[in-house]
Amino acid sequence: MENPGCTCTWRTLYEKPQTMLVNFKNMVVKLGKDDPRRITHSLKFGFALVLITIFQYFRPSFYVLGDNIMWAVITVVFVLEFSVGATLGKGLNRVLATAFAGGLAVALREIASFFGDKGKVVMITVSVFFVAGTVTFLRFSPRLKAKYDYGMIIFNLTFCIVALSETTENELLEVAQERLLTIIIGTCIAITVCICICPVWIGQDLHNQIASNIVKIADFLEGFRDEYFNNLGKTAEAEDDKSFLHRYESILSSKTNEETMAVLARWEPRHGRFRFRHPWKQYLKLGNQIRLCAYKIKALSVFLLRSDQTPYEIRSRIEEPCANIIMESGKALKESSLMLKQFAKSGMANPHVANAKNASESLKSVLRTNPWEGADHLQIIPAATVASLLIDIVFCVEKICEAVEELANLANFEPSEILHRGTVQPIPDTDGAVHVITIAE
Amino acid sequence: MENPGCTCTWRTLYEKPQTMLVNFKNMVVKLGKDDPRRITHSLKFGFALVLITIFQYFRPSFYVLGDNIMWAVITVVFVLEFSVGATLGKGLNRVLATAFAGGLAVALREIASFFGDKGKVVMITVSVFFVAGTVTFLRFSPRLKAKYDYGMIIFNLTFCIVALSETTENELLEVAQERLLTIIIGTCIAITVCICICPVWIGQDLHNQIASNIVKIADFLEGFRDEYFNNLGKTAEAEDDKSFLHRYESILSSKTNEETMAVLARWEPRHGRFRFRHPWKQYLKLGNQIRLCAYKIKALSVFLLRSDQTPYEIRSRIEEPCANIIMESGKALKESSLMLKQFAKSGMANPHVANAKNASESLKSVLRTNPWEGADHLQIIPAATVASLLIDIVFCVEKICEAVEELANLANFEPSEILHRGTVQPIPDTDGAVHVITIAE
Repeated sequence: MENPGCTCTWRTLYEKPQTMLVNFKNMVVKLGKDDPRRITHSLKFGFALVLITIFQYFRPSFYVLGDNIMWAVITVVFVLEFSVGATLGKGLNRVLATAFAGGLAVALREIASFFGDKGKVVMITVSVFFVAGTVTFLRFSPRLKAKYDYGMIIFNLTFCIVALSETTENELLEVAQERLLTIIIGTCIAITVCICICPVWIGQDLHNQIASNIVKIADFLEGFRDEYFNNLGKTAEAEDDKSFLHRYESILSSKTNEETMAVLARWEPRHGRFRFRHPWKQYLKLGNQIRLCAYKIKALSVFLLRSDQTPYEIRSRIEEPCANIIMESGKALKESSLMLKQFAKSGMANPHVANAKNASESLKSVLRTNPWEGADHLQIIPAATVASLLIDIVFCVEKICEAVEELANLANFEPSEILHRGTVQPIPDTDGAVHVITIAE
Repeated sequence: MENPGCTCTWRTLYEKPQTMLVNFKNMVVKLGKDDPRRITHSLKFGFALVLITIFQYFRPSFYVLGDNIMWAVITVVFVLEFSVGATLGKGLNRVLATAFAGGLAVALREIASFFGDKGKVVMITVSVFFVAGTVTFLRFSPRLKAKYDYGMIIFNLTFCIVALSETTENELLEVAQERLLTIIIGTCIAITVCICICPVWIGQDLHNQIASNIVKIADFLEGFRDEYFNNLGKTAEAEDDKSFLHRYESILSSKTNEETMAVLARWEPRHGRFRFRHPWKQYLKLGNQIRLCAYKIKALSVFLLRSDQTPYEIRSRIEEPCANIIMESGKALKESSLMLKQFAKSGMANPHVANAKNASESLKSVLRTNPWEGADHLQIIPAATVASLLIDIVFCVEKICEAVEELANLANFEPSEILHRGTVQPIPDTDGAVHVITIAE
């Protein structure tokens, strides 16, 4: 019998590298398939470095890189990021921080040189201690960290390098100027390559992500309706396509990601339909509303797993108003998402939201009539909870649609003419006064 | 009348810097108060740089930094992080990546030198393009990025610098050796300062954060009981201390943070009660269970805001079993958290979990008897939803306690003797067979 603890036989030693290679290949293929822009970015990165080589090889008359090429390489490696926003943010941070810190350190050395050799060493050491310590402390501030973290690191770096350098005062200014120029050249190469070759706008990414998150919520709700109010039981073939029931889960933990994207998007210049002062903060507000809805959906999804415990008989009593709520909420969300994708605004209240609210009122009316008279309370409660969560979700959907409309107003999207062909449906079972409001194209 | 658009009067020009200074001061004070270790870290950072200055000033006989000091400074600035795990991870990444990339680039230049001047330039340029592009592409892999992102950046950097350097082949090896040595010295200074002066162990932080998140859940539940089943209405003085009702919200978006901490914790050596192969993955599993519970709590918290809509009369009918569920769940969670904090394991099932499950069964029995006979269904449903969510939460609490116990087993925590003085209470209203299990100290 083999020792189960020792899996390191000759066979595994031979097979492991093989499976590792296969896994590695699969990973690489998946990375490229998931987002082909990753391949473009890698090529852009290689190209930017080739540009530096060419720059060095042809030695333009106005400037010879020489061994300063190192600084151009360091700059490109650290500054050239996937998105334009990140690249511009890091580039500006790098150039400004280098200039400020370099200037400060040169001034410090000039002043310190009045104090004799020993005095100079002491003064520089004490300054390095305090300046580096203070900047390091400020890096803990979440607000400063979000926009200027890289700048603060570079400030520390440049200040210490210039202050502690062994170069004599006479050469110092020259060396500092050369390096700053090299860093500016590196930054320009990085920014040019990033913007001119298939640019990735992180603002556009955030916009698309928010729009597709709204659709994920709608898809879940529609999937929930089909599964929960389905009397057929679970068939094997239906099992295949239930990914939409889990797709919304990525929303639950998207907060940090959205915040980073919004910060980076602010560095981006006017592009496509995004103006210079695009209301990026509103995306975070909208993202929070979507997340609140996703938390409710997480609570709702529990009842999908346990729908077998509630007889179809009981579920079916609330099927109609619930299905209406879901249909209208789904339409409202999908229309909002479409408006967002098309940079359009409707200028009037979404009729599907009104319909969803009416459906929610009619669900309340049904509940008021005690639809489950005589049934076991333990079987009723899950169904009642589903009803209650759906009523809550209508409220969330309304908030999401309002936030989308607010964004459209803040960003001055153009009024759309193709949307809102819907009809506001009256509540069928209230006081009898029927107002049908049809909104023409 | 003043123009509301133009806020830039003389007064604001004078006041703005003042308020900015006050805001800045408040921010700094808050940063220090929130976590005094931040101040220590800033001082450590300054001290590490002073160590380099001293090293350079006294010029030890075995090695003269000279202008290579720059590399020591760069290394300390980038490697010295807040926690030991991050510092060790970055330090190892830096040294290994520099050594590998440097070796590869030197080898490449040796081979390229056989191809004549032009052939050499072409070969080096093509290699830089492919190597840098490939490494950049691999940085998109979430698994590699988590542990080796910094290493991959440094690999790119070093490979390009050495490959593109204008140094002649004869000097190259010497320069490369010197720089590697400087980087190793910088890394050693960073790691020594990080570990020897008030070290911050990120593993300990993760451990504490998970334990305190469990308490946050328990606190919310107890606060919920006091608020929801309170007939007194909301008094002004009670408003003050409701922070515990929102404290759990940080758990909802803690996933990314916990994952980063777990990755960094793996770099840390044996320290305190943490062994070398501490089961950090289990913390993520436990964190997920806690988050699942927090999502349910988020759904529950809605009913707290709307408790006015449900008459106390209706809420009071389920008060006793609900209060029992909350009491026992709270005790179970707090005991689990305490065990975690004390690195102890109980070795037996938590009696409070059993009690909470019994309370949940007795809530079900109460519900089965139709406690709200004759009341308006619309008023019943919120209360029924609260009951249903509480029953769900008991399930989550059980999962959390199991995950804590699993962690205690995997990490070989010592059996505790002071815990579990509880008594398993029987369900009062079932078949009448009463088994009281008392667990002695």
